[in-house]
Amino acid sequence: MAGNTFGKIFKLTTFGESHGIAIGGIIDGCPSGLQLDLDAIQNELDRRKPGQSSIVTQRKEPDTVEFLSGIFEGQTTGTPIGFVIKNTNQKSKDYSHIKDVYRPSHADYTYEKKYGVRDYRGGGRSSARETASRVVAGAIAKQLINNIAINAYTSSVGDIFLEKPYQDLDFSKTESNAVRCPDQETAERMIHRIKAIKKEGDTIGGTITCVLQNIPIGLGEPVFDKLHADLGKAMLSINAVKGFEYGSGFCGAKMKGSDHNDIFNEDGSTKTNLSGGIQGGISNGMDIYFRVAFKPVATLIQKQNALDSSGNIVEMQGKGRHDPCVVPRAIPIVEAMAALVLVDFYLLNKLYK
Amino acid sequence: MAGNTFGKIFKLTTFGESHGIAIGGIIDGCPSGLQLDLDAIQNELDRRKPGQSSIVTQRKEPDTVEFLSGIFEGQTTGTPIGFVIKNTNQKSKDYSHIKDVYRPSHADYTYEKKYGVRDYRGGGRSSARETASRVVAGAIAKQLINNIAINAYTSSVGDIFLEKPYQDLDFSKTESNAVRCPDQETAERMIHRIKAIKKEGDTIGGTITCVLQNIPIGLGEPVFDKLHADLGKAMLSINAVKGFEYGSGFCGAKMKGSDHNDIFNEDGSTKTNLSGGIQGGISNGMDIYFRVAFKPVATLIQKQNALDSSGNIVEMQGKGRHDPCVVPRAIPIVEAMAALVLVDFYLLNKLYK
Amino acid sequence: MAGNTFGKIFKLTTFGESHGIAIGGIIDGCPSGLQLDLDAIQNELDRRKPGQSSIVTQRKEPDTVEFLSGIFEGQTTGTPIGFVIKNTNQKSKDYSHIKDVYRPSHADYTYEKKYGVRDYRGGGRSSARETASRVVAGAIAKQLINNIAINAYTSSVGDIFLEKPYQDLDFSKTESNAVRCPDQETAERMIHRIKAIKKEGDTIGGTITCVLQNIPIGLGEPVFDKLHADLGKAMLSINAVKGFEYGSGFCGAKMKGSDHNDIFNEDGSTKTNLSGGIQGGISNGMDIYFRVAFKPVATLIQKQNALDSSGNIVEMQGKGRHDPCVVPRAIPIVEAMAALVLVDFYLLNKLYK
Amino acid sequence: MAGNTFGKIFKLTTFGESHGIAIGGIIDGCPSGLQLDLDAIQNELDRRKPGQSSIVTQRKEPDTVEFLSGIFEGQTTGTPIGFVIKNTNQKSKDYSHIKDVYRPSHADYTYEKKYGVRDYRGGGRSSARETASRVVAGAIAKQLINNIAINAYTSSVGDIFLEKPYQDLDFSKTESNAVRCPDQETAERMIHRIKAIKKEGDTIGGTITCVLQNIPIGLGEPVFDKLHADLGKAMLSINAVKGFEYGSGFCGAKMKGSDHNDIFNEDGSTKTNLSGGIQGGISNGMDIYFRVAFKPVATLIQKQNALDSSGNIVEMQGKGRHDPCVVPRAIPIVEAMAALVLVDFYLLNKLYK
Repeated sequence: MAGNTFGKIFKLTTFGESHGIAIGGIIDGCPSGLQLDLDAIQNELDRRKPGQSSIVTQRKEPDTVEFLSGIFEGQTTGTPIGFVIKNTNQKSKDYSHIKDVYRPSHADYTYEKKYGVRDYRGGGRSSARETASRVVAGAIAKQLINNIAINAYTSSVGDIFLEKPYQDLDFSKTESNAVRCPDQETAERMIHRIKAIKKEGDTIGGTITCVLQNIPIGLGEPVFDKLHADLGKAMLSINAVKGFEYGSGFCGAKMKGSDHNDIFNEDGSTKTNLSGGIQGGISNGMDIYFRVAFKPVATLIQKQNALDSSGNIVEMQGKGRHDPCVVPRAIPIVEAMAALVLVDFYLLNKLYK
Repeated sequence: MAGNTFGKIFKLTTFGESHGIAIGGIIDGCPSGLQLDLDAIQNELDRRKPGQSSIVTQRKEPDTVEFLSGIFEGQTTGTPIGFVIKNTNQKSKDYSHIKDVYRPSHADYTYEKKYGVRDYRGGGRSSARETASRVVAGAIAKQLINNIAINAYTSSVGDIFLEKPYQDLDFSKTESNAVRCPDQETAERMIHRIKAIKKEGDTIGGTITCVLQNIPIGLGEPVFDKLHADLGKAMLSINAVKGFEYGSGFCGAKMKGSDHNDIFNEDGSTKTNLSGGIQGGISNGMDIYFRVAFKPVATLIQKQNALDSSGNIVEMQGKGRHDPCVVPRAIPIVEAMAALVLVDFYLLNKLYK
Repeated sequence: MAGNTFGKIFKLTTFGESHGIAIGGIIDGCPSGLQLDLDAIQNELDRRKPGQSSIVTQRKEPDTVEFLSGIFEGQTTGTPIGFVIKNTNQKSKDYSHIKDVYRPSHADYTYEKKYGVRDYRGGGRSSARETASRVVAGAIAKQLINNIAINAYTSSVGDIFLEKPYQDLDFSKTESNAVRCPDQETAERMIHRIKAIKKEGDTIGGTITCVLQNIPIGLGEPVFDKLHADLGKAMLSINAVKGFEYGSGFCGAKMKGSDHNDIFNEDGSTKTNLSGGIQGGISNGMDIYFRVAFKPVATLIQKQNALDSSGNIVEMQGKGRHDPCVVPRAIPIVEAMAALVLVDFYLLNKLYK
Repeated sequence: MAGNTFGKIFKLTTFGESHGIAIGGIIDGCPSGLQLDLDAIQNELDRRKPGQSSIVTQRKEPDTVEFLSGIFEGQTTGTPIGFVIKNTNQKSKDYSHIKDVYRPSHADYTYEKKYGVRDYRGGGRSSARETASRVVAGAIAKQLINNIAINAYTSSVGDIFLEKPYQDLDFSKTESNAVRCPDQETAERMIHRIKAIKKEGDTIGGTITCVLQNIPIGLGEPVFDKLHADLGKAMLSINAVKGFEYGSGFCGAKMKGSDHNDIFNEDGSTKTNLSGGIQGGISNGMDIYFRVAFKPVATLIQKQNALDSSGNIVEMQGKGRHDPCVVPRAIPIVEAMAALVLVDFYLLNKLYK
């Protein structure tokens, strides 16, 4: 009920605050007999971790995952996979100045009001650090459904948009630059923008596009648990996300039916794909693509007014080491959450065969 | 698992195909002692039902809800509320021509592939008729949380946008016109557009904005079940929805942090509300507002190519009585789903006090 | 949360009070493509219905199930199966004398205290009438797992015990007598006892033994959802049940390990089966057998003291038509609940293959 | 679905094999603001741990719980409580002889058949070691509902029964002897029996009685989630349990209604309590009491025939350090599971107020 579990079959439950001893989770429902590529899991974590490049936070956290159960001789056993990632770089003193202060557009105020008590050290549970556990689970999910290609990339930073459709991109280039935009020219403009923003002590928003390919027909449940509804929830559960659209998205709302309908080919594929690979909540075998909007990071290295717990407006300035733009590090998180949604429907489908 | 249940505490499970005997549902988890206004429930259904005006489908369905249990002497008893809505106007013959045909951008093809069998009469379970059950449950939910104001309205039809912010609107005007746009001048342009589209046998998309006011602080769970993530899933589970954004939404992704942060007043409210009333997944007491994108209805009264079950491309033309624009009738559905999300978090919050 | 749903995959949600308009339910998660034998379903309901013989309640209720959805041309479609059973014989006036009275060992008092409001007509939701919905769902479940043999029978009434082990019984004889004991001689003694008890206006308890045969190896989950734990919960959720034991049961608690261990044969079967077909919560392919204890029905046709809502002790006498012994009519309920547990684990197992 | 989570609101998910790195769990849904007595938690673990006395296994495991999250300055924060208990005494070599052998009446065979792969070191996930995590969660649950008294004790070992009713016992004496029977004379006979059995290399079964006092009226849900049904499932999910009965239990099945009904006092209490404190699945404020049957431990220090994975019968003899009777160490587990059931219904009840 408290919402720390994701998934119905391949279930991830996470725990851990940014400045506690460790974060981690339990994956319950991973089938037995999967030979795990542990390096691939760590590699996903490394894509998310701080300090990778000059445009992300310079915190140094090794983010090494340690598996405690559910794996025997490299293989999953069908029992729960418990794992921890130790918090090795918790500079709690960085946060002492905000003990009684609610930062603007952070969760400090709402946590305090909801729970009456709050681990004020660095965001606690609301910190995006929690998403490292999602990346671990998503990496295992990817290995279960390794026929499906999951590719996310940065499609905008501020008002710099990658104009090319995904069909014209080479996803193998995504990791070739710090902003994770597969178009090198656009990537450079994005990086330039982020660096400029960082210099101002400011931050900037952006969007991520994610493309799912080689999808089996029939994933998704037709009423409440539509495939795109679960993808949407998964994305909206990521820190800083403000919007989700798939297929034609908000543009589709401006269109006429005669322009929007996807006409069939004889093999069941469609000539266009404004539907985004999903009909009636169920995958139709065409590519699924969606776009996720991220707000600018709320922690600024600028003076801002905040509220203290006594109801006084106080001036504060972000310290610590924060991301000027959350999007590059959010790419592996978007992919992980997509993998978690897909693996659930993939397993569920076997059930009804 | 099959996804016909919504909610964790105030749980709605629905059943029924558009052309079966009846649709209906069970609400499990409604607290006892609620004196129900049955007229108000029927009134919500009437807002959704076909045949209300010249810009919606002319099917005539009385859509009368009949309660079978859980209510005694007008009061909820805490036991499950079973209800049915009979299908009185099932012109099954209207659909015989599509028995072996998959209509473009419908769920015919995906249902057939997923289930191997399909009630081909009019969309079966994928029909928006299922949402009538949601409206019943949402109407009861509204009565449980009647301090909260839930107001949805049509904010665009095609490229006609209601430009005024919600603060400048009088929600009591929403029901005063057929398109449910509270600004009369814009409403007229929208209605004009829909009538023109209908004359072409075509359809058009649109967006709905929904505003939630007088929200208690603390609704929503911080990690996977963020308030906006559950709202997003709820909206994306409605037929024809392609996108969801809240607060600053996709526009927020273009902004800088120094422009986006909502600065506190001394009472904990904020000077701006780009956050859309939610911080870290938890309501902060400010207005919640979000926008939902609907694609154009896929059934056209025009000739189109479709696919038959033998893999042949066949020409078909929509018959029956269909909506040229889904948005006006979707308003009460959006409100109902918002009420279901809110009531769940409202009840959940009592649990932890 | 309010506990009106049973099952995780093949989920039954029930609604309805004994004296409302109808009872019924929704089965969500039944796979598509199952050709239903509707007569077999009605037949199971007929085994449970009142008025079958002289030793059960003489109420006349046809208990005809009406399916509203999820079945098309006799086949399940994979969508939710909604059904109702109308309450045709609700003699509400029979119950007016207990409006403000809490009957001893009934749920009147606890419902009133829990909900603050109560449908006082005949037990409302606490009536065993609710179990008719379970019998419908169980009958469908049986058709899905029709390789498994599910046989329950009366193994004791009061202190009359059927001494023969189940291996010596012919289950085809169970339906040949009113008490549903497959041993004719014992059955006669049981019937005699029940008739004597009924003449006194009294009631009597009994036990049911249930045998599950031809079980696939591997059903059940190893920790909390052990096969026998879910069977136990299922049985304990039936009205009037006071105990559950499987395999060696309470006798096993008196034994030594060297006597209790089941030694393997070379084919993986075991020479003895004190384990009752389950090891570590998982079926091992041997027969599963368990025993369920039912208390005597609390409604007596004798004068008893009861409590009224003002705190006065009042004399009352059961009216209406009640069972002198619940066991004969509970046989199909025990089988139905066993089928619901098995079908869930059966489907779940497919998921992990 | 894989069944490693217990509870609906105060949810415990456990992980870990007996011979892996660690066992542990996540408690999700514990309300914030609970000042934890950490010593009391460790004390419960110490009651369960091996090596406490001469009649339990002589393995030495400190079983120290380490909390990783959800607690800040000694108080729960409302976020998930992650914890681990390291496996410090995993003598894996003790188990190498059973790598390819299925021990009789163990879960080796069913795990192998279900999962196709198995951590053969000492029972893996089927080991009762898993229950240490339940004891941690139960100890926290107890602190949340500390008005309720939960007292379990050994009520039989083999055929030695504690004949006194619970009302005549002094629960403060339970911990005064190694077998945890509050009647000293009976305790001595039980201990004597266990020692004799141990000398034979054999094992013996027993029963635990548990008494819940000072229970609020209204706990439990009326249909599937009856209070006693959830207690039954909880108990049956404990390793080696074969049966559960509450109130009059199996004896009640022999009784007449006129003897079994509990007649009210004017204050709503009852003169007798054969109902065991529950009516219609809901607590009535009277004491709840139930009895749990445990089979004899399957590991014998005697020669037995076992089956190897090639289908040969092989002779084996248990090595390692095992319990001759599981009951004394199961007392805190029974109490923990009872606490987990109660806390869930306790929290759920707040929700509907």
